[in-house]
Amino acid sequence: MIKVAVLGATGYAGIELVRILSNHPDAKLCVLGSHSFAGQNISEVYQNFNHVLDLDCEELDLDKVGKCDVAFTALPHGASKTVIPSLIERGIKVIDLSGDFRYDDAKVYEKWYGEPHSSPELLEEAVYGMPELYRDKIKNARLIGNPGCYTTCSILGTVPLLKSGLAETKNIIVDAKSGVTGAGRGLGLAYHFCECTENTKAYKVATHRHTSEIEQEFSNAAGEEVLISFTPHLIPMKRGILATIYVNLNRESSQAELQKIYEDFYKDEYFVRVKKSGDLPETKHVAGSNFVDIGVCYDERLKRAVIISALDNIGKGAAGQAVQNMNILFGLDEKTGIKNAGFYL
Amino acid sequence: MIKVAVLGATGYAGIELVRILSNHPDAKLCVLGSHSFAGQNISEVYQNFNHVLDLDCEELDLDKVGKCDVAFTALPHGASKTVIPSLIERGIKVIDLSGDFRYDDAKVYEKWYGEPHSSPELLEEAVYGMPELYRDKIKNARLIGNPGCYTTCSILGTVPLLKSGLAETKNIIVDAKSGVTGAGRGLGLAYHFCECTENTKAYKVATHRHTSEIEQEFSNAAGEEVLISFTPHLIPMKRGILATIYVNLNRESSQAELQKIYEDFYKDEYFVRVKKSGDLPETKHVAGSNFVDIGVCYDERLKRAVIISALDNIGKGAAGQAVQNMNILFGLDEKTGIKNAGFYL
Amino acid sequence: MIKVAVLGATGYAGIELVRILSNHPDAKLCVLGSHSFAGQNISEVYQNFNHVLDLDCEELDLDKVGKCDVAFTALPHGASKTVIPSLIERGIKVIDLSGDFRYDDAKVYEKWYGEPHSSPELLEEAVYGMPELYRDKIKNARLIGNPGCYTTCSILGTVPLLKSGLAETKNIIVDAKSGVTGAGRGLGLAYHFCECTENTKAYKVATHRHTSEIEQEFSNAAGEEVLISFTPHLIPMKRGILATIYVNLNRESSQAELQKIYEDFYKDEYFVRVKKSGDLPETKHVAGSNFVDIGVCYDERLKRAVIISALDNIGKGAAGQAVQNMNILFGLDEKTGIKNAGFYL
Amino acid sequence: MIKVAVLGATGYAGIELVRILSNHPDAKLCVLGSHSFAGQNISEVYQNFNHVLDLDCEELDLDKVGKCDVAFTALPHGASKTVIPSLIERGIKVIDLSGDFRYDDAKVYEKWYGEPHSSPELLEEAVYGMPELYRDKIKNARLIGNPGCYTTCSILGTVPLLKSGLAETKNIIVDAKSGVTGAGRGLGLAYHFCECTENTKAYKVATHRHTSEIEQEFSNAAGEEVLISFTPHLIPMKRGILATIYVNLNRESSQAELQKIYEDFYKDEYFVRVKKSGDLPETKHVAGSNFVDIGVCYDERLKRAVIISALDNIGKGAAGQAVQNMNILFGLDEKTGIKNAGFYL
Repeated sequence: MIKVAVLGATGYAGIELVRILSNHPDAKLCVLGSHSFAGQNISEVYQNFNHVLDLDCEELDLDKVGKCDVAFTALPHGASKTVIPSLIERGIKVIDLSGDFRYDDAKVYEKWYGEPHSSPELLEEAVYGMPELYRDKIKNARLIGNPGCYTTCSILGTVPLLKSGLAETKNIIVDAKSGVTGAGRGLGLAYHFCECTENTKAYKVATHRHTSEIEQEFSNAAGEEVLISFTPHLIPMKRGILATIYVNLNRESSQAELQKIYEDFYKDEYFVRVKKSGDLPETKHVAGSNFVDIGVCYDERLKRAVIISALDNIGKGAAGQAVQNMNILFGLDEKTGIKNAGFYL
Repeated sequence: MIKVAVLGATGYAGIELVRILSNHPDAKLCVLGSHSFAGQNISEVYQNFNHVLDLDCEELDLDKVGKCDVAFTALPHGASKTVIPSLIERGIKVIDLSGDFRYDDAKVYEKWYGEPHSSPELLEEAVYGMPELYRDKIKNARLIGNPGCYTTCSILGTVPLLKSGLAETKNIIVDAKSGVTGAGRGLGLAYHFCECTENTKAYKVATHRHTSEIEQEFSNAAGEEVLISFTPHLIPMKRGILATIYVNLNRESSQAELQKIYEDFYKDEYFVRVKKSGDLPETKHVAGSNFVDIGVCYDERLKRAVIISALDNIGKGAAGQAVQNMNILFGLDEKTGIKNAGFYL
Repeated sequence: MIKVAVLGATGYAGIELVRILSNHPDAKLCVLGSHSFAGQNISEVYQNFNHVLDLDCEELDLDKVGKCDVAFTALPHGASKTVIPSLIERGIKVIDLSGDFRYDDAKVYEKWYGEPHSSPELLEEAVYGMPELYRDKIKNARLIGNPGCYTTCSILGTVPLLKSGLAETKNIIVDAKSGVTGAGRGLGLAYHFCECTENTKAYKVATHRHTSEIEQEFSNAAGEEVLISFTPHLIPMKRGILATIYVNLNRESSQAELQKIYEDFYKDEYFVRVKKSGDLPETKHVAGSNFVDIGVCYDERLKRAVIISALDNIGKGAAGQAVQNMNILFGLDEKTGIKNAGFYL
Repeated sequence: MIKVAVLGATGYAGIELVRILSNHPDAKLCVLGSHSFAGQNISEVYQNFNHVLDLDCEELDLDKVGKCDVAFTALPHGASKTVIPSLIERGIKVIDLSGDFRYDDAKVYEKWYGEPHSSPELLEEAVYGMPELYRDKIKNARLIGNPGCYTTCSILGTVPLLKSGLAETKNIIVDAKSGVTGAGRGLGLAYHFCECTENTKAYKVATHRHTSEIEQEFSNAAGEEVLISFTPHLIPMKRGILATIYVNLNRESSQAELQKIYEDFYKDEYFVRVKKSGDLPETKHVAGSNFVDIGVCYDERLKRAVIISALDNIGKGAAGQAVQNMNILFGLDEKTGIKNAGFYL
């Protein structure tokens, strides 16, 4: 059994990790770190775990965590980076869900986060934890920067087209719609039920940090610098991101050609489901699962591809993908504990 | 592996059975019966099953179903009763989710359903599938009448008090609030999103059929005839029932005494979680699980107990309990495949 | 034009007052008191008012408020009572939306609010602002204690039966379901969208303060002391309360008789709509309006009336009723500015 | 008083017309046409109108309708066009909410609707009912093609930029998110509460009919043919459309310049509210009102404008705008009966 610590266990990404891992046949939850709820049993903080998991939340104790095999760090951005070097030093694997270790280049991080990176040498070593693109590197990593929700949805939805050579790299638009768990469990007027339900809005137009992470991977795939418009929106639902992606093509194409590009690219991937021509993703198909659903449409009037990509922001967009990375790190079948269908209802 | 047929697989109770069983270590889905979607793959009808389950829906073929070990019949009320005798004859176990085989007395059925019972001899043999009350009978049953959602919630919430001798049997009120999956997948203006969201209403006041099923089990527990007010309400959420139950006591009691009655009654039950004094059930604690959460409050001003009981109407109130019954029927650990925590998010 | 001050204008009851009054033909909003948003234009705090109302929020200035004709005080409980005597002294009418001036007897207040009443002499003078019951007293009042949301719904739903002499006063149960605006705009984990949507729960079982206000008016109507079970529930919608009320009858009755009792009682009331036999109230019929819808059902098996009563908790349950009271106080047609149908959508 | 007929009164656009007009000081509802509910009082079909409006729904009677001053036709596409010529002949004004009379060119209609236009000569005469662009023509029209919801939101959000000469006309993207009332009251599995809540999806990618209406007005504004990507999405809320519009600029610009273009363009318009720099529209600011809120953002990295535009799809996107047109047609203050703030809650 893999001994697991979840740090930041009582946030929404953290508790989804706990939910998945409490049902994982090869992992054993040993440490639940939570500053806010230290001393309380997890089944009091999230009463859905009563009779299922009997473990107290605790303040961070690096030595205790260091006795685990792997730590998931679902801490607020910045907090991760003080803890992680100490854990790496103790020889355990770290899968970090913050933005701190997702960048190829510390300068990009510093530009978008507005502060110097505290562990540039670890950043260099860290592997971007998107198995569909970097599976081989993940296998031997010590530190994984687990991709964000918007970014996973955008990148997996676009990379096949970028690698195909058919995409123009100018004028790519990613218009993304997210459920409210994406904002976390912290209180805020914008997330009060009465302010949030029956409402839709955009936020951080042209300035959201995930833009830089998406651009990094788009550029890697295209082999040239790609800049995009990325617009996040808040939707009155709990789970799910749907990204609508607009990509001009550099020549006429067809629905069949686009379809083939995506189906071929993902033919061996369990967690990426390319929709049949005419079908489109919906967030309820992926909520509660580790799947990404991708539909591609060819607009022949405009010589443009419109790609729809959907995932569960705290599933494949956070906790599910983190467990997928853990499975790879420890030589398990990648699907272990996360192969289930979404809730739908 | 237990070979399983689900008849009525594309309704909401049916598809929840499919969701649970597709992840059950000792069961294999062999037949998915669906008149409406015969010929279509289940992963087209419910696209959350893509990559997870590759099985076509089919018209009812009794011989094929008869080769399974067990059939779950989630057919509309009435349809079950024509199919079930044929299946029993073929020697397979049947777990029926309709109201047809839940009654001790065909007359009660006939009064509330307004038609003669078609298989009174099978009704006599059938076992009421509530493991917490009838586990021993279930073990050897051929036919199980799987209890309804409102009824499971009401019965498990009240029986300990009725058996304690402390309850007055007059003036029991069950005021129940249900999510919309309880109404099924059939179309109806009342279930149109725009009519249903941001709305609460009562329906079938003093006339809902489940009243008779609740009264049967209340009477069994009390050892005398019990008549109740049962009022169902429709709440703008998908999953979950919360029942608020009012029971007068025949003498002064205390919070501690009530608490002890419930804790003792359910001390060996995994799927019933008695809340600590001061805590109350919420449907989000049980949605997506097979748990029933029960909180009991003593109102000393009125010498009255107020009990709050919550479950997932398509979980413990339908599919989850049906799988629990299957586990018992086949000698498995009762928790197999259904021991997980609810979704919470 | 009636010059109006709204104190506590940026809470949910306050802003609903502003919404109604901004469209009232005989009232002019002059002062918007808001400690939290003092200095900001109301159309910045609630951007739906842009182009409609151009007025700054301000700190409390008693002299300025005192130049108005009437002040609505939608302040947190307790805050009202320090402000109100000063306003009364300045000779303006006060309609208070807190619980402070709703009681016939300071002792009841003190028992349920756990503190001495600060203005017992004003309490004595204050009129309970439920026009359907106390219209004549309201006309000449200086200070109105505007009834709460749960209480208005419960009282108007039950008083006709209590006054008819047909009701048993023991065993009355009020099971009420409220939308989340009832909890106000203050932040709290329980009101975070992700915690609140897809969830139903009871709270403050047997201990909610509104119990005492309901019991006061039930007792007044019955002519004897009435004690009740009152259970509030939180429902995932914004606006609306639905109360399900159980009353035993002291003899056999009939649907027709109950129907007549209610129709006669409310035959001259515009804002109370008694549903035809067989129809039942739904919160979407009243949301956004000043109406109360009441349906009554006779359960002949149990000789019991089940009454369903619905209103908009921030409409007839707060701001709408307060404006109705203002209309009466100033000799206007009671329906002025509030006669519109609810939103439905 | 203007005598008004609403044909198709029981659909969602129709009933919103009824709601607005029942409160309009200069209009009197005389005829409510509804095939489905003929013979029933409107207050039975939509019980929120009980005590407010006492009028029976009736089958279409052209002579009776012809005695009104104006008819709003909110009939299914196609039905309008058989009725409208007869009404025009009878000399009454017609405001049509279908797509039939919104086109400059019958060929465009025929291409996108897949059938010949039945009244090309009336089409020629009809005026596109967007007051902010065509107020003068509306004043004297006999027949108004009332713009659709997506189109109003898109057009008012983009035209100022197109007319400024700063916009590139290639690569314009309109990504729109709509509440479910946009799909109407007809039943469909996609609009069942359980299928629709907690879900987001795109539909009719690159093929939605409104594309052609938007392109027509974009082209008119730009003075050259403009083709766009338009992607509609279904969001789990009742009311509201939010359009996110991406427009490349033909030179460097600035937030201030864009802001000024919009503020100048709409400086005399009551119903268009240009957000201050940094503020963004939200559907809850406009739901229940006739306002359009527009926010514009300059992305200096990409020399691109991102415009967010929001309205209530059954308000300014249907019924509200239709009443605005009526007000103009009859020489009333354009704001009469529709100047109120949105619900917010």
